[in-house]
Amino acid sequence: MNMREHLNTAMYDVRRSGIREFGRLAAATPGCVALTLGEPDFAPPEAVTAAVAEALAAGETHYIPNNGIRPLLEAIAAFEKRENGFECSPDEIIVTAGATGALFTALFGILNPGDEVIIPSPAFVLYAEIVRMARAVPVEYNTKADGFQINGEHLKALMNDKTKAILLNTPNNPTGTVYTSESLQAVREAVAGKPVFVICDDVYRQLCYEGKAPSFADFADMREQTLLVQSFSKPYAMTGFRVGYLIAPAEVKERLELIHQYTVVSAPAPFQRACIAALNSDISVMRQTYAERRKYMLSRLKKMGLQAPQNKGAFYLFPDISGLGLTSEMFCRRMIQEEGLAATPGVFFGTEGHIRLTYCYEMAALREGMDRLERFVNRLRKENGAD
Amino acid sequence: MNMREHLNTAMYDVRRSGIREFGRLAAATPGCVALTLGEPDFAPPEAVTAAVAEALAAGETHYIPNNGIRPLLEAIAAFEKRENGFECSPDEIIVTAGATGALFTALFGILNPGDEVIIPSPAFVLYAEIVRMARAVPVEYNTKADGFQINGEHLKALMNDKTKAILLNTPNNPTGTVYTSESLQAVREAVAGKPVFVICDDVYRQLCYEGKAPSFADFADMREQTLLVQSFSKPYAMTGFRVGYLIAPAEVKERLELIHQYTVVSAPAPFQRACIAALNSDISVMRQTYAERRKYMLSRLKKMGLQAPQNKGAFYLFPDISGLGLTSEMFCRRMIQEEGLAATPGVFFGTEGHIRLTYCYEMAALREGMDRLERFVNRLRKENGAD
Repeated sequence: MNMREHLNTAMYDVRRSGIREFGRLAAATPGCVALTLGEPDFAPPEAVTAAVAEALAAGETHYIPNNGIRPLLEAIAAFEKRENGFECSPDEIIVTAGATGALFTALFGILNPGDEVIIPSPAFVLYAEIVRMARAVPVEYNTKADGFQINGEHLKALMNDKTKAILLNTPNNPTGTVYTSESLQAVREAVAGKPVFVICDDVYRQLCYEGKAPSFADFADMREQTLLVQSFSKPYAMTGFRVGYLIAPAEVKERLELIHQYTVVSAPAPFQRACIAALNSDISVMRQTYAERRKYMLSRLKKMGLQAPQNKGAFYLFPDISGLGLTSEMFCRRMIQEEGLAATPGVFFGTEGHIRLTYCYEMAALREGMDRLERFVNRLRKENGAD
Repeated sequence: MNMREHLNTAMYDVRRSGIREFGRLAAATPGCVALTLGEPDFAPPEAVTAAVAEALAAGETHYIPNNGIRPLLEAIAAFEKRENGFECSPDEIIVTAGATGALFTALFGILNPGDEVIIPSPAFVLYAEIVRMARAVPVEYNTKADGFQINGEHLKALMNDKTKAILLNTPNNPTGTVYTSESLQAVREAVAGKPVFVICDDVYRQLCYEGKAPSFADFADMREQTLLVQSFSKPYAMTGFRVGYLIAPAEVKERLELIHQYTVVSAPAPFQRACIAALNSDISVMRQTYAERRKYMLSRLKKMGLQAPQNKGAFYLFPDISGLGLTSEMFCRRMIQEEGLAATPGVFFGTEGHIRLTYCYEMAALREGMDRLERFVNRLRKENGAD
């Protein structure tokens, strides 16, 4: 009896992320420089690791309230107000298993089978897969023609009675693009007065290198429809800790917290203080380092004549390779083989003709990587007779 | 617009566990002795907390493989073979967010809307609620009349074409009962040759005080249908760490791991070594302490004339209070008010006429608690004119 045939039918449609697999291909290639990983190459702030040791010494190894300890919930509310001007009650916050836990809780909490979620693409594959797990339908809005911004008319054309949510990720993975106020305003106009949630995946918000990244969560009058997803992973280099949070209107959170409770019970007790320490730590050195790397990467791309869309945040660049005669996957496969450089194909994020480069690496690796990219691009141009 | 009305309709039926709420009622009553908590009062083994510090010092704060680091998967496979004679490949294991994460992954992974899951009761409320989240149907099998064991005929009478799984928890929460080989054999006969999974929640298996607790997972020829749920919480006093594991046949696990990946990504990186340390630590002192407490509790119950079902494991007793004229909830509420003793009503586990006492407490608290219980029971008997 093959029990493989007797599973939740929704799970047969769920796809694996290609990103990690591509990372493995790079790792298996000797001497390969990988610019693929979407996680900080830093250690967490010292106060964070010290706080874990303190928590263990203090015996904080037992069950805690499902949504997180009160001092952490208060610290998050204070942080959101101070940093983003976002006012919320500690009772509207759930400390989750990373942004992934927050996204699952939010999406599973609102979606009925057949509901639709509009996902501007390119986007992290996770979104569509969680939507499929809930037997709902991901609706792709390819923003490339709109300069990776939101066009109100194009957005509204995708909406109907089944639209339950729009998922915004700014600064964006994989482009690094920050939505303009006009983009956010367009979303607001599209959902105002309609029973449609806006899920704000703002995990890169603190990593913005030109001014402050606006967010849909800034619209205080749209709070009833706003679900805010945040993570300790990216700003504080805590990817391995698996802690994030979800902020939802009280009466919605009252249902969503049950999903959290029945999937993970709570975030780990020994990490609660560490998260408070993270919120109070100074990450300007990390941010400054990313800013310098970004500047270097953009100058190199410009020199080799590759266009990258507007890029102000996160730690990604999404250069356009559509004129070079290869699909993004073939481009990346050949680049690993021929030059020992790994990037992530844009098609893994739903957008052909681009590759994702990350700059979560030391300058030496970035320099070597960009040298290899330049050689590869030049060879392709020669092959194509474009030079 | 009240967005509370636009959520996943399945979530409106999901209930909160009454256990924690009752714990809060006790906590709010000055001087109240609580015998309600289902978690060890011990600290984790020292090797466990030391391993967390080592991991942080070694920079193990980054992403790890979704299912856990290889050395941990190998340690789990070795442990299962050594401790339980259960042979599995490291590739059949997912390190989850506690047993809760394993149960959610297993149930959500196999259930289609309308599927039925047979849950012998009394049982932890979690099972039925996860089943409801998957739009499936929990089918209660009240085992009280069968001495809290499984009767093959009674089980088969509940099965039909929609039966997708049977959920076994031995040693049991809330009774402490260990299933006999006959009970497990009855399950085997009921599911053999049918596309029905058996989910083994064996989290208390190491806490058995009379011989070894058998498990459905012992049936090597039923492995295709067996999903094994295990936790680091109960045996190693690591409830706050939120780590457990799920073992499933390779071709089933290949789908289930996507649920794990899209709900939590992985268990925390800094806890991976700590889990290896836990598996190699000696928990005999904890077990011996529980054994002594259990003996004391059983002798006190006997002296006050309260019957408790067969009890060999976990850290629970489930005395019968049905002859005392109160529902289990009223019994527990009055006992808090009148004697300052908190227990958990049996009805919270689906079985009236019993209360759950836990012995995760120091002897002084157990002595005082049992004195108070005795006074309360005697008063009820007087009220009822039974004395």
